[in-house]
Amino acid sequence: MSKPKLALVQLAVGAKKAVNLANARSKVLEASKAGANMVVLPECFNSPYGTQYFAQYAEEVDSKRPSESLKALSAMAQESKVYLVGGSIPELEPDTGNLFNTCTVWGPDGLLLAKHRKVHLFDIDFPGKIVFKESEVLKPGNALTEFATPWGKFGLGICYDMRFPEMAMVAARRGCVGMIYPGAFNTTTGPLHWELLLRARAMDNQIFTAACSPARDLNATYQAWGHSTIVDPYARVLATTNEAENIVYSDLDMDLVDEVRRSVPINTQRRFDLYPDVAATGHTDE
Amino acid sequence: MSKPKLALVQLAVGAKKAVNLANARSKVLEASKAGANMVVLPECFNSPYGTQYFAQYAEEVDSKRPSESLKALSAMAQESKVYLVGGSIPELEPDTGNLFNTCTVWGPDGLLLAKHRKVHLFDIDFPGKIVFKESEVLKPGNALTEFATPWGKFGLGICYDMRFPEMAMVAARRGCVGMIYPGAFNTTTGPLHWELLLRARAMDNQIFTAACSPARDLNATYQAWGHSTIVDPYARVLATTNEAENIVYSDLDMDLVDEVRRSVPINTQRRFDLYPDVAATGHTDE
Repeated sequence: MSKPKLALVQLAVGAKKAVNLANARSKVLEASKAGANMVVLPECFNSPYGTQYFAQYAEEVDSKRPSESLKALSAMAQESKVYLVGGSIPELEPDTGNLFNTCTVWGPDGLLLAKHRKVHLFDIDFPGKIVFKESEVLKPGNALTEFATPWGKFGLGICYDMRFPEMAMVAARRGCVGMIYPGAFNTTTGPLHWELLLRARAMDNQIFTAACSPARDLNATYQAWGHSTIVDPYARVLATTNEAENIVYSDLDMDLVDEVRRSVPINTQRRFDLYPDVAATGHTDE
Repeated sequence: MSKPKLALVQLAVGAKKAVNLANARSKVLEASKAGANMVVLPECFNSPYGTQYFAQYAEEVDSKRPSESLKALSAMAQESKVYLVGGSIPELEPDTGNLFNTCTVWGPDGLLLAKHRKVHLFDIDFPGKIVFKESEVLKPGNALTEFATPWGKFGLGICYDMRFPEMAMVAARRGCVGMIYPGAFNTTTGPLHWELLLRARAMDNQIFTAACSPARDLNATYQAWGHSTIVDPYARVLATTNEAENIVYSDLDMDLVDEVRRSVPINTQRRFDLYPDVAATGHTDE
């Protein structure tokens, strides 16, 4: 199958974890019934997004001792028989008490395929618009992450990770055909850069890119941009949406990766005699 | 003066070199009279763009023995008292017979400030749309290039160089506040990627970017995209145009570079423990 169907679940996330998990399950099943082979949940899909919430909603991420959200993700991947990029949840590392913003990926057999801890924490200060400091409560991850599917390898990043082009450059040069970003931009940075980031990463690396946001909740302290979007290796937007709860679908023609690389062969034209190859070193967990 | 006025001369280029030089002079003077402090000419501004033309129009680029186009560029910079990014011309290296696609930059005193030889040659093959192989007749340059102005340092690239993000990353991390690209995309790659490339380089490096194209000539073998464009460090398009001959102007608020870097401090948040810094090594001619 060279054209998997990708679904981004732009979930309405509220204060009740059990409700968030039940709603996620319902949407993942809906996407599967609509033919999706890979389904993505948004950043912080089991909890409101905000530094005041992370500790309260945090869970250990250990597939040998699955916690509430991990059990739910494993079950929904298995029940719907999809590759499931489980958005992110606040992770508690029991030994240290450290908190992380962590994405888990599950196979159709319900087994954990990969785990990515957000490596670039979201610390910004737009005067008069938005101040946010994830680093007040979270620690950053220390590895780049990819996972394998029948359609090729995909790299993982979480939200602010999108702003650092090296992650997608490393992933693509190591053979990934796409980057998946659960993310929750806001109404300041979203209109400025959300789609541009996805299109830039796709263009420069000739890969598919997709970012899955929560739906906007006008009562929340953090107003998510929404606009979950799928982009092809030519940097064309394949599917997107507004800020409301929705599922965004697109078939991915995996042949496009080779096609664009034959047409515009930047892959073989880089001048690593003039600048180093960022993919030549670095740490990747597979 | 923290807000220099930048002008991109989207010149109509024809087969007669002397006419091209005279028209360029006229437009540079026009831009200067309109208040421009920096003026950019397009790629291959003294010659039609095409591998069949480069040898015929080529000149030595040696400021000690200035050839026809260099004399003209020096004179128009001095006459108009602007910093002049002299687009590009086909360069002949007398000792080797090698040809290059070369940009020269001139100060308001008419002196040569910098010279950039295109380092990524334009070899693409879009089946049924466009095949072009600069490498059939040109050699690539072997250095990255920047030049100093009263408003900060700018990096230089030529056209296809835009597709390689490392050049702008290196320039910005070495203190450049902008990247200037004389370029001539076409009616296939232009609509796909011209503006996206400029906005991506601006966003990821929090710098100004500008690309100056020749006007489209419907009788030419190569149909330039036009759309000369100036982008700010937030990746917002400040000024652009269509495919006809025109001058594109924008004041550059240089304070925006620091402002966006305070708001979204990616400059200090990169994870060089996880991927190398492309600006840590490399060759730059200043």
